[in-house]
Amino acid sequence: MQRRILLIVCDGLGDRPVKSLKGRTPLQAARKENMDWFASRGACGLIDLISPGVRPGSDTAHLSLFGYDPFQVYTGRGPFEAAGVGMNVKGGDVALRCNFATVDDDGRVSDRRAGRIREGTQELAAALDGMEIEGVEVRFKAGTEHRGALLLRGDGLDPRVTDGDPHDIGAPVMKVKALVPEAEKTARIINEFVARAAKALADHPVNVRRRQKGLLPANILLPRGAGRFPNIPSIQEKWNLRFAAIAGVALIKGICRSVGMELLDVSGATGGLDTDVDAKIRAAMKALEEFDAVMVNIKAPDVAAHDQRPRLKVKVVERIDESLDVLRTGFRDDWIVAITADHSTPCETGDHSADPVPLLLYGEGVRKDDVTSFDEIAVARGGLGRLRGVDLMPSLLDLANRGEKFGA
Amino acid sequence: MQRRILLIVCDGLGDRPVKSLKGRTPLQAARKENMDWFASRGACGLIDLISPGVRPGSDTAHLSLFGYDPFQVYTGRGPFEAAGVGMNVKGGDVALRCNFATVDDDGRVSDRRAGRIREGTQELAAALDGMEIEGVEVRFKAGTEHRGALLLRGDGLDPRVTDGDPHDIGAPVMKVKALVPEAEKTARIINEFVARAAKALADHPVNVRRRQKGLLPANILLPRGAGRFPNIPSIQEKWNLRFAAIAGVALIKGICRSVGMELLDVSGATGGLDTDVDAKIRAAMKALEEFDAVMVNIKAPDVAAHDQRPRLKVKVVERIDESLDVLRTGFRDDWIVAITADHSTPCETGDHSADPVPLLLYGEGVRKDDVTSFDEIAVARGGLGRLRGVDLMPSLLDLANRGEKFGA
Repeated sequence: MQRRILLIVCDGLGDRPVKSLKGRTPLQAARKENMDWFASRGACGLIDLISPGVRPGSDTAHLSLFGYDPFQVYTGRGPFEAAGVGMNVKGGDVALRCNFATVDDDGRVSDRRAGRIREGTQELAAALDGMEIEGVEVRFKAGTEHRGALLLRGDGLDPRVTDGDPHDIGAPVMKVKALVPEAEKTARIINEFVARAAKALADHPVNVRRRQKGLLPANILLPRGAGRFPNIPSIQEKWNLRFAAIAGVALIKGICRSVGMELLDVSGATGGLDTDVDAKIRAAMKALEEFDAVMVNIKAPDVAAHDQRPRLKVKVVERIDESLDVLRTGFRDDWIVAITADHSTPCETGDHSADPVPLLLYGEGVRKDDVTSFDEIAVARGGLGRLRGVDLMPSLLDLANRGEKFGA
Repeated sequence: MQRRILLIVCDGLGDRPVKSLKGRTPLQAARKENMDWFASRGACGLIDLISPGVRPGSDTAHLSLFGYDPFQVYTGRGPFEAAGVGMNVKGGDVALRCNFATVDDDGRVSDRRAGRIREGTQELAAALDGMEIEGVEVRFKAGTEHRGALLLRGDGLDPRVTDGDPHDIGAPVMKVKALVPEAEKTARIINEFVARAAKALADHPVNVRRRQKGLLPANILLPRGAGRFPNIPSIQEKWNLRFAAIAGVALIKGICRSVGMELLDVSGATGGLDTDVDAKIRAAMKALEEFDAVMVNIKAPDVAAHDQRPRLKVKVVERIDESLDVLRTGFRDDWIVAITADHSTPCETGDHSADPVPLLLYGEGVRKDDVTSFDEIAVARGGLGRLRGVDLMPSLLDLANRGEKFGA
């Protein structure tokens, strides 16, 4: 019997011992009856998302969890950010992240986020979208707040260019430079686009209104994080799965969309601390009726950890655990669930770390081990040992009786 | 907070069950309160220095522990031996180990070590150093006892040549042969050098004196272990660490020097059984005030194991353990310590084996596991699982909050 796969990614879930939690990790300190219930009846282990000691980004980590080797497919954040704002990115496209920012009359950056502009960016973006420069199609789309994505499609593009964002207040806007001769054309196009954009933004009605209100105008674009979207097979081609995704954060959405997952909208799935985990889990269970596999990303643990609030992280874990109640009671024989994380975010540092993340697998066919607690230390003694991120999807396919045989 | 890294490499520490120790390994049989104290408060695991089942050399193992993939950077022992005797090896250089040896009048090797010559080799080497053959700079330097290192620097060199050392008494000295056409020039140069060296050695005053004393003359050089020193980034470039090393053995010193570590002289650090471990540990702790990372190699366990003396190995472990007392009491919050080995040397065989070596990590941020004994068997159930040698340095950097993020 082929089973269906539910992959629950608790963003930034892994941690280190926290002094204020008496040397326990938030996972160890949390009451988490459901996670422990699944762990007690399943198999546990640790995952190095990229490889031991390599600090994963959320993007590279998710690619890895989906079975794509990030060393092969990842050249920069731009393409996934572009996909995240809803652009239809194709293999070979070069894309960059952009900030709407403010420059003074001397061409120096006075605010890298244009006074944290929130309104009007769609209108501004519309004025910049759809140019053609040196035969290359240039698309631009606004993201959340001051963010946007720039996409170049055409021949002779190369992403090896420097950032135009000086990353410092008071610094002059920098020309993008080619890091290799092959990228000269790309650098020229980006610089030309930024120049044309500056003209279009200067007296745009949105900026006129902002100046009237005493707000900083969004009169420059600062591009960075150039990358080429790789020619990779879609997740359907790669694993022969109809795959759906539920996520609140643009970057994660972008990765899911770029590998051809179907994004499901769940009301209340915000990507923040207030996200409705219950709704996400219920939506995922419902989606398993239609799809072979569903990925749910729950961003809240990462948010608490980035804020370096271990007690809040404990609470977030407990709330996720409560939401797993419905999964436990409604679990079906032909499901395999994996609960894991895309990286550790220790409250100590407030940033991603390479500490391996806990993994649990539950469902029929899973070799039950002795682990009774779903935490970073207990799972290390589990039956799955220590895996790499790219190994998870093949392992799940195999447990789902969907793997292909290598050999005869 | 960025932490500092102390890496203690107990050479050849790993072992197999020993009958005379009632089936225990020397580590299991030893009293080692401090190692167990660290293990009880830290995380443990196993390391395959190269990969499972591959017997590591001391050189490849240390490269691996420093984060250099030996499959990529190691072509032969020569370059690291040359660095070990103090030669300034550069990327692209080809180097070989040489023995001073004795040939009889028929050109047959009568002693591969020239009567274990100890004195006068510096003078002999001086007579051979600084030739130029086919436009290639040829350097020669004596090492300890009968050993020396030959270094070639110039264009068109290739290390894929056979040994000139017949490795047998009574066998004729062999011409070095190219294993690939690209190495013809290198083979010619080495053979020409050996011929010129034989002439220079024949009536050298050192040999005249030796003959007068009834000692075997050092009248031939037997080259072997050709390798090309790789173009690798220094350890400072690679990991952004000011890295110091404390070691007694020439080969280990050579590796440390060749990757750009600063070698610290510690009086009493001999590399033998009589080495002053206390002094080494104290020197390492002091060096951590100045450097981001310090590596200490303690050769004694390997020496005992090579001599196939398990009880001596137990004693050596106990002496190392006593020296860790000062580390335990003087440990600082911003340190991470790793205690491990470069390979197993089972007393059974007296030679390196591929059995994975124990690893313990201790310091703030380390996920404490349940292991309470630092030995080959107990650590296998630890929180670190089973790692590869090259994964250690990234893992330490991550724990030291010094890692770079891959992705966003």
